[in-house]
This record gives sequence, C-alpha cells and structure tokens, in this order.
Amino acid sequence: MSSSTPVPPLLSRIAGPADVKALTPEQLPRLAQEIRDELINVTAKNGGHVGPNLGVVELTIALHRVFHTPEDQIVFDVAHQGYVHKLLTGRQGEFFRQLRKTGGASGFLCRPESPHDAFGAGHAGTALSAALGMATARDLRGSQEHVIAVCGDAAFTCGVTLEALNNVVSSTKRLIVILNDNEWSIAKNVGAIANYLNRISTSPTYNKLHHDVEAFFKSFPTGVEMNKIYHKWKRETKDFFMESSLFEKFGLRYLGPVDGHNIEALCKNLEFARDCEVPVLIHVLTKKGKGLDAAMNSPEKFHGASPFDPETGESLQSGSGTLPNYQDVFGAALTRFAKKDPKVLGITGAMPAGTGLSLLAREVPGQFFDVGIAEEHAVLFAAGLATKGFRPVCAIYSTFLQRAYDMVIHDVALQNLPVTFCLDRAGLSPNDGPTHHGLFDISYLRCVPNATVMQPKDEDELVDMLHTSLTLPGPGFIRYPRGAGPGAKVKAEPVSLPLGQAELLREGSNIMIWALGPMVQEAQKIAGRLADEEGLSVGVVNARFIKPLDRTLLLSQATVVPLIVTMEDHVLAGGFGSAVLEALQDADCATPVERIGWPDKFVEHGSSVDILRAAYGLSTDDITRRIRDRYKRLGKAEVEAEA
Amino acid sequence: MSSSTPVPPLLSRIAGPADVKALTPEQLPRLAQEIRDELINVTAKNGGHVGPNLGVVELTIALHRVFHTPEDQIVFDVAHQGYVHKLLTGRQGEFFRQLRKTGGASGFLCRPESPHDAFGAGHAGTALSAALGMATARDLRGSQEHVIAVCGDAAFTCGVTLEALNNVVSSTKRLIVILNDNEWSIAKNVGAIANYLNRISTSPTYNKLHHDVEAFFKSFPTGVEMNKIYHKWKRETKDFFMESSLFEKFGLRYLGPVDGHNIEALCKNLEFARDCEVPVLIHVLTKKGKGLDAAMNSPEKFHGASPFDPETGESLQSGSGTLPNYQDVFGAALTRFAKKDPKVLGITGAMPAGTGLSLLAREVPGQFFDVGIAEEHAVLFAAGLATKGFRPVCAIYSTFLQRAYDMVIHDVALQNLPVTFCLDRAGLSPNDGPTHHGLFDISYLRCVPNATVMQPKDEDELVDMLHTSLTLPGPGFIRYPRGAGPGAKVKAEPVSLPLGQAELLREGSNIMIWALGPMVQEAQKIAGRLADEEGLSVGVVNARFIKPLDRTLLLSQATVVPLIVTMEDHVLAGGFGSAVLEALQDADCATPVERIGWPDKFVEHGSSVDILRAAYGLSTDDITRRIRDRYKRLGKAEVEAEA
Repeated sequence: MSSSTPVPPLLSRIAGPADVKALTPEQLPRLAQEIRDELINVTAKNGGHVGPNLGVVELTIALHRVFHTPEDQIVFDVAHQGYVHKLLTGRQGEFFRQLRKTGGASGFLCRPESPHDAFGAGHAGTALSAALGMATARDLRGSQEHVIAVCGDAAFTCGVTLEALNNVVSSTKRLIVILNDNEWSIAKNVGAIANYLNRISTSPTYNKLHHDVEAFFKSFPTGVEMNKIYHKWKRETKDFFMESSLFEKFGLRYLGPVDGHNIEALCKNLEFARDCEVPVLIHVLTKKGKGLDAAMNSPEKFHGASPFDPETGESLQSGSGTLPNYQDVFGAALTRFAKKDPKVLGITGAMPAGTGLSLLAREVPGQFFDVGIAEEHAVLFAAGLATKGFRPVCAIYSTFLQRAYDMVIHDVALQNLPVTFCLDRAGLSPNDGPTHHGLFDISYLRCVPNATVMQPKDEDELVDMLHTSLTLPGPGFIRYPRGAGPGAKVKAEPVSLPLGQAELLREGSNIMIWALGPMVQEAQKIAGRLADEEGLSVGVVNARFIKPLDRTLLLSQATVVPLIVTMEDHVLAGGFGSAVLEALQDADCATPVERIGWPDKFVEHGSSVDILRAAYGLSTDDITRRIRDRYKRLGKAEVEAEA
Repeated sequence: MSSSTPVPPLLSRIAGPADVKALTPEQLPRLAQEIRDELINVTAKNGGHVGPNLGVVELTIALHRVFHTPEDQIVFDVAHQGYVHKLLTGRQGEFFRQLRKTGGASGFLCRPESPHDAFGAGHAGTALSAALGMATARDLRGSQEHVIAVCGDAAFTCGVTLEALNNVVSSTKRLIVILNDNEWSIAKNVGAIANYLNRISTSPTYNKLHHDVEAFFKSFPTGVEMNKIYHKWKRETKDFFMESSLFEKFGLRYLGPVDGHNIEALCKNLEFARDCEVPVLIHVLTKKGKGLDAAMNSPEKFHGASPFDPETGESLQSGSGTLPNYQDVFGAALTRFAKKDPKVLGITGAMPAGTGLSLLAREVPGQFFDVGIAEEHAVLFAAGLATKGFRPVCAIYSTFLQRAYDMVIHDVALQNLPVTFCLDRAGLSPNDGPTHHGLFDISYLRCVPNATVMQPKDEDELVDMLHTSLTLPGPGFIRYPRGAGPGAKVKAEPVSLPLGQAELLREGSNIMIWALGPMVQEAQKIAGRLADEEGLSVGVVNARFIKPLDRTLLLSQATVVPLIVTMEDHVLAGGFGSAVLEALQDADCATPVERIGWPDKFVEHGSSVDILRAAYGLSTDDITRRIRDRYKRLGKAEVEAEA
C-alpha cells in the first residue's frame, strides 16, 4: 500500500497546519497518499469511518492550506470525515493509531481533544447551524476569522440543516459552506435534493466545466481580482448557474461543482470564497472510499467499517463473531412478519444496514422506506401511516430517537398511534463514545403517557417483543444493545408477551435482582456468586417491561425480601431503578432498592464495554460487591421487620 | 358585526360538508361573513387563534366544496387555522361557543373530536410529513382518496417540513400541498424562504396574473381539459414560473399565487390539483385577521389572542390581570442584563411576544434573534455562539423544547456549553390542552449530564435564577408557568443563588413538603391547613434546584422527619419527586415520600388550571387529604423509629 521508493515520509513531520502550508504543491499528492495509507492501516485494525475519510483527503489538505485553524473555525458535520483533519492538526502517530480505543483519538471531532476542533459532533446535520452561531459571534465582536461548515450531501436531508439554510442570509454576510457531495449518506442518498445534486453533476455543462476549470483559472495571472474571474465564469456558464439556483434561492452564492480530488482547484475556490462578502456554498464532488477499491465498491459497508483486511477489504471476524447481532435478528424477524402481513412496514433514517433493515429492503422492498437522515420525518411519516391502519416500525438508534422526541410525544403518543420503535444501540456503543451511547431513552420515554417500553433479555425475546408490539393499540418501544446477544435460538413461532408481566428466572429470599436486557445474564452470574461466596439466596427477575412495570410481582417480592436490586444499561437518573422506587413508594412499601446503572456523566469512548464498565464501577466484581455491601448495611431491625 | 338584513342565517344550518356543497356560489360570501362573525364573537369571549382563522375562511369553504371529508384527508398544520373547518364539519353552535373551555371544542384539531380531523396537531410543521404517510398508505392499499396538507408559510421554517418536502416525490405521485402564505408565523415571518415567497407575491408578473387569473379561467368552457389550461397558463407566465422554481426543484408542480379570498379561483385551482398525477403545491395568499381591523393591524397580538372587545380589539383584563406575567418579568430582566453585558443574547423560535423577548427586540435589537419556528436550529445556533464566549438565552416553551432535545443533549450538554434555556409554559397551558402543557421537561432534562435545572417560586426568584444561570459554566434550564405569578416585587439588583441549595421556608417536625415553583405557595397554604386542622407540624422547602438537588438539606430533614412530600407541576414518572426518592435511596434512607404531581395521562384542555387540577385529584383539598392520609398510614413503629 505504501510507496515503494525510500523517500522520507511527510506525514510523520506534520505537527500542525503550518507544516501543511510549508509543503510545496508538488509534495501534496505524496502527503495525500501517505494519509490514505495511514487511514487504511488504522481503520483496518480498529474499524472506523474509512470511506468518508478517504473521500476528503484532498479537501482537508486544501482547507488547511487556505485557512488558519484554530483561529479560523472549520466545523465538520457529523465528523465522520474528521480523521484527515486530526492527522493534520497534531494528532498523527500513536494517538491516531489508537483511534476509537481507550486513551486514543476519538472517532469524532471533539473540543476537549484539540483546539483545532471547533465543534464536536457525532449526529448529522449540526454543522451549518453551529457555524452560523460562530459567524454571528464573529460579526458581533467584530473579529475577522473565517467560519467554514463542511457538510456531506446527506446533511441536507436533515431538517436542522435546512432550518439553518433558511437562516444563513439573515445571520451573516460571511460564511463558507462546503457541500461534500459523494452521493451517499450512510446508505445511498435519497430525496429530491440528492436527485437535484445528481442532475447538476451529470449535466453536460458541468462536464465541460469540470474539464475546463483548471485551465480556466490558470489563464489568469495571480494578481487579477478574483471577482472579475467569477463574473466571467458566471457569464460563460449561465445555463449551469440557472440550474444551480436552489442554493441561490436561499441567498448563498453557488460555486462548483469542483473536483474534490484536485487540490489546486479546491484551493482556488476556497481562496475565492474566503474573500467573498456574501455567504458562499462550494459544491465539491468526492468519491467515498477513494484509494481503497473495496471501499469504492461497497460504500455502505465501508462507511463505518469493522476491522478488515487492508488488501482485500474482507471483514475480520472478531471473537464472538459467530453469533448474530441483535440488529440482524431484528431485521430477519421484521422481514418475516412483513411477508405475512402487508400492513407491517419498516422505516429507517438512512441506516438500512446498521439497523438490520437491509434484508427487508431486499426481500420486501414495497414495505421498506428510507427517508434519509430525517428522524423527525420518519416518525411523523409513520404516524400518518398508522392512522390508516398500517403497522409501521421505525428502526432508529436510541441516541438518534432524541431527534424525533417531540414527534414521539406530540404526534404518536398523544394520538395513541400504533407505531413500533426499535431502539438499537441502547446501552453503550463503546468505540463511538458519548455521541452514540444510548443511555437516556428510558428516562425520556418513561414519562410519556401511552408508551409501552420494553427490553428483551435475549434474541428470541426480541422477536417476541416485536411480535407483541405489532398488536399493541398504541406505541411500543423496544430497546436492545449493539452487537451480539447471548445466542438464544429464535423460536419458529413468536409468542405474545402478556403486557406488563415480568419473568421470574430464579427465586431468592435475601435479595431480588430486577434486571433489564443484557443485565439479566449479568444478574444471574452475580446471583450465583453471592450464593456461592456469601451464602445468600438471590433471585433474578427479567423485568421485560419498563413501562408498564410489573407492580404485582414486584410488590409480592418486596414485602418478603429485604433488598431489591435493579440493574440497567442506562443512566440512573429517571431510569428503570427509579421506576421501581416509584412503584414501591406508591404502594407505601419501604423496602430498600440498590440501583445499578450509569452515573450522571457523559461516558467517553473506549475499547470495549467491559473496559468502560470497569471505569465506572460497573464490572461484575464491582456490582457484586455493591450488592453484598448494601445487604450487609441493612439494619438488623429492618431485615427482621421485613421477614 | 352581523348582517343587518333579516335573512335566515346559513351557518346554523351547516351540519357537515354536504351542506357546504349544497349552497349556491352566490350564498358563499354570506356564509363567509357569518363564519367571520362567529369567529370574532367566540374568540372575543374565550380568546383563541382568531387571526389565522379569519384568514382561511374562503380557503376552508373551498376545500369543503371540492373535497369530501372524512374520506379525503385534510391535514391542517398546527391547526391554528382549524376553527373554520370545525364550524363546517358539524361542530358549530354551543360546542364551538365553548371553544377552549372545559367540555367545549379544542383549540386545535384532534382525532377524538371528529372523524373530519385527519390528524391532530398543536406544534408547527407536522402536516406535510403526516400527509405523506397517509398518501403512502393510500397508494399501498390502492384506494383513491385525496390527501391535502394545509401549511402556513411559517411551517416552511420548520426542519421537519423541509425533511418531508425532500421526501415528497419519492413517497407518492398524488399529494396536494396548500401553502397558506400570510407572511406571518406567529410573529412576522423570517428567513430566506419567506423572502423568496415575498418576491414572488410582489413581482409585477404576479400582480398582472393576480388580476387576470379569474378572467383567464372563465375564458374556458367547463368541459375543457384542465391540463391544457395549465400548459397555456404556464407558457404565458414562463418568467413567473422560473422564479417559482424552488418547489419545482423538490419535484412539486407549483400553482399560484392564488387570491386566498376568492372562493371561485380557489376551487378551480383545487379541482385542477385534485386531478393531477404529480404532487402539487398551491400557493395561496391570505390576509391574517381579514374582517377584523384590529387583527389586520396587529397580527402578532391576534395570532392567539386573549379575550378582547370585538368592536375595538382592546384586550379585556382578566381578574388577575394587574400582575405581570412570568414572561414579561423574564423579558424585562433579560433586556436589563443584555444592556449591561453585550455577551448576553436572546433567541426565540418565532415567539417574541409569547416568550417576552419583544422588549429585547425593541430595546437591544442587535442582541435579539428570531430564527423562525426552528427550535433545533435555535439551540444549535446558541451552542455555536456559546463556543465564542457569548451567553445565549433560548426562550422556548417547555413543550417546544422537545423539538430540540437532541441538540440539548448532543450539542449543548455534552460540550458543556453555557446556554441558558428559559422554559415558559412549564406546567399547564389550560385552554390550549395536551399539545401545549409543559409536563415532561423535568423527566427529559434530569437525565442529561451537566444540566442545571431550576424552577423559581416567584417572579423575583426567576430573575435571580436567570442571573445565576448566566454565570454557570454549562447549560442552565429555568422552568416557569404560564401567566402571572404571586406578584413578588423584583429586587433592584439580582443575587446569585448558591448552586444546588434549596430554601427552607417553614420548619416542621411531622412532615416536610418539598415544593417547586407555584406549588410552593400551595404547599404553604396546605401546611397551614394541616397545622390548623390536624395539629401537624408541617414544614415547607422551596426546592429551587431540581438538579443538582439539595441532598444535604433533604437528608438532614429525612433523618428526623417521618414523612417527606414532594409537589410539582409535572408528571410523576421520572419527575422531581422521583429525584427525591433517588437521593434518599442513594443515602440508604428509607423515609417515605408522598409524591404529588400529574398522573401518567395526557391532560385535556380546560377552562382553568384549577378545574383541571380538580379533575385529576390535585385540588388543594385533595392534596391536603392525601398528605394527611399518608401521614396517618405511617406505621406507628416507623414514626417512632424515625423520631
């Protein structure tokens, strides 16, 4: 992969943007190649967003040739495409090679990591709004720095980007928007704007322009005022500009399309935009995955890839790789149900593979909808479908459902419409970190009237819950973790779970543990240890329903068992344990409850769930010790009174 | 106001849309006049969205002349403009005259109220997405009904409308979008799309068209295929259509602008659109407040008006009208702080008057930002400003902050940016009902790390909290109710409240009540009654901070007082009382807690807060009884053990 001539490498000498600027134009292609090699080597080992970053190598070099961070503010949307920026701003070397691992570089940009990261992100569509805030701040204080928002074409399927677009002209006269158009969101991009961009880029006018643009710019001596060039260019390509007027209707000057792999053309356009006194959008065409054939051929797979063979692109199986992921179990079950019932529909916001809906898309395409990175629309669209007797299933990660929270309350729950929500990535998404952990959904859903909220202990129960949710009169929410489950075989026919009934897995007279999801297996392990090591009789309940909670079973136990323990992969504030406390208090029951869950902190990224749990006192040992200690602290009187 | 000739009224004979269709064209202007009289009479007494409805009288008549509800689906965005639809679909008479009162018509459309209400709403921007869901459902099942989304121009400042717009063409070939363009959201409309619409409507081409359109349509006999007319029209107005191509870029056929007060022109356009095999947008120009001079002159005031004199438009003072509303106290304080510190900024999503920011807009316009009905952008824009050292204050109703929940977590709290959120309408918004009550914010904010969440007991403390929040290192959230407070005089200089410290207002040895906001006054009343009537010693704490909770004070009391009571204007699930339970359990404290708050139900609209509280067992009498009963239920042993 690396160059065969033994020239000293450039990348290892890049300590910051000044070193990028010091290179000669002739050295830049070599730098680009070294960056690509490093991207491939590191993501092949660690996994990560290799495709998006391979596409923006030249663009990022050009940005750091023309602009001066950290004074100038470059806001990368989602920051899926921020690795190159990291490599050029002092983070190459060992720190980058530990990408997405404990102690290594975050997979996203984040302000604590570097002053060159103007704004952190991990969810799509935020760059333009944040950049407008920064540009307005600059205008208010009268400073002169440049603000650049780098947005993928998929960001323009997000409502918040479009809200920002509507506000650009009223907010500032100086803003540079880079539209990094690679025709993909996570999956192939969808919607009218994507079609529109495609029409521009494939028009004969563009193709002519594309080949001429470099020669065109070169025909002018450096000293000539760029504005004149612009006007000449505009005159010569009038038809093209008419076609491009979508962004001009929003008051932005449109430049492009520009070849996103031509550093010189990129620099010229950026320099022109830098000196404009109106907001400018530069439409840059890039190839997602450029430099890695496997990534060019499978853009969705290599959007955010698991570790792979850098030569062949084949995925490397991890240790537990023989068990199916929850998302695959979900996708297979939904496809099965959809084939049986034409009313069952699957909806995703640009994540068919991540959510497991790819199978439905392939096998029952008429019952599959990808609406783009547009969770608000996804949920409302589902609500509309539900009013007409359909059973839509919104497959949205726990963290992304935050985007559609108002629609969950105001449109689905208030009207008690039967929409099912499948919240993948509930709990930790360890390599991704705090923008992707799903640690808040129980708190934000538990307060919503009409909501049924569930979490399965294993794969088979996930299928039963999906089956059950599809018969509810109102909204159902099913949360489940990233990755593989314990490997429970899925039954041939699903069963309906009785609403609000927990499952008693192990009897106990000293302690009852109420556990959710993957914590059920953990609870059984701990119950065994407490029995073996402490001689305690510890029972385990698979709670199944967070809402409605099985109050009957809970109270029947709490009146005879002196300690209830709750275990959840969720923050404690307002979480499942809190629901248990409420239920006991409402019944005048004073039995103590030890709540195990995540503390009131944003949890960083890390190499694995186990490492992060250990860092927050949630290892199996820690939990076992906490339960034992709490039990021992129970006043003698208290234990006796309850017995 | 009503016609002076003694002809029998038409409106009282309208039992449903069939009766609208049965009228002769000549009768329609009279019907329109009667509707306007009724709208003015009812809203003058009850308050309500008079301006938006006066603007859509002819449009709604035309819709019911051309389409057949409930088979055809008309989705009204926000439903601020749904009163006329109610009057024409069997809800005129006494039910409508009790508009927004207990037992009367809801101020919004809602599915339980009538089969003619295809989709409920109260938040803006939802119609297009929901309508797309319905149109897709129709296409899937092969039925033939029409789906019409009626959206104000302000809906196009909402991200979700724009997400839907991007999905129209990929979702269906048959959809009718009415763009009801009155140039106002709640305040004067803002942003690039509004400017664009304004350019269309004021162009000379349009003005010519506007005058010619009726004659133009009349020049064709009825039998002529409308498509031909369309193409001739399009040819003749080519320039105009070029200008209008924003919507055509999204794949919608654009018709208009149409005079929204000309029923015949409206019907012709609707009939044409009905028969189109591509999605159509009809751009209708209406006058907000038409028929009431005061409303035409003050569109913001009459968007959602308090009771007024129907002749003069003067507001009628309600009983407590001499006390300032919380929003006014907030607006005055923020203006004062902004004048002192140029870093203090105010941001609203189209609600300068409702939030109290109008004063800031008038007095310090450079520090005021109205971004349109775009809460997601508002919060992200604030986050961008905060990264540059500014102190933005987002004034957003509790219920509308749900729209920006992901930005609160992912952009503001995760980056610990110092944005202040002022959540007006926390608690009930009684006349508006479930779409506007602010009953979930504690649950959805309490789980967010880095958040400081507060509620003041009175006006003066609101100012102190705002002052305090403006010095926090991270995000601050201040919730306060709709309407007037207890009338506390605001100090000349605000004080900083010690973070996480509650205020002990009244000592007590039997019971301690921890109350939030307006519940503090209620708690004091109840404490007095329990002392007088039951001889109990009941203390009262003004909790002030929901997060961080004053655990020190709480535990110092809970170890000596046998019963803690919490009182909040919020749902119980995950609310303030739940935070108190968590704090006690975390400290191994088993003191019982009686939690007073709203149950797990959507609360309907009603004539007053008191009426709704009584309906849910939350009257002063009810609460007093519940506390007394819980105290009496405490086991003798328990009381003694704690004492």
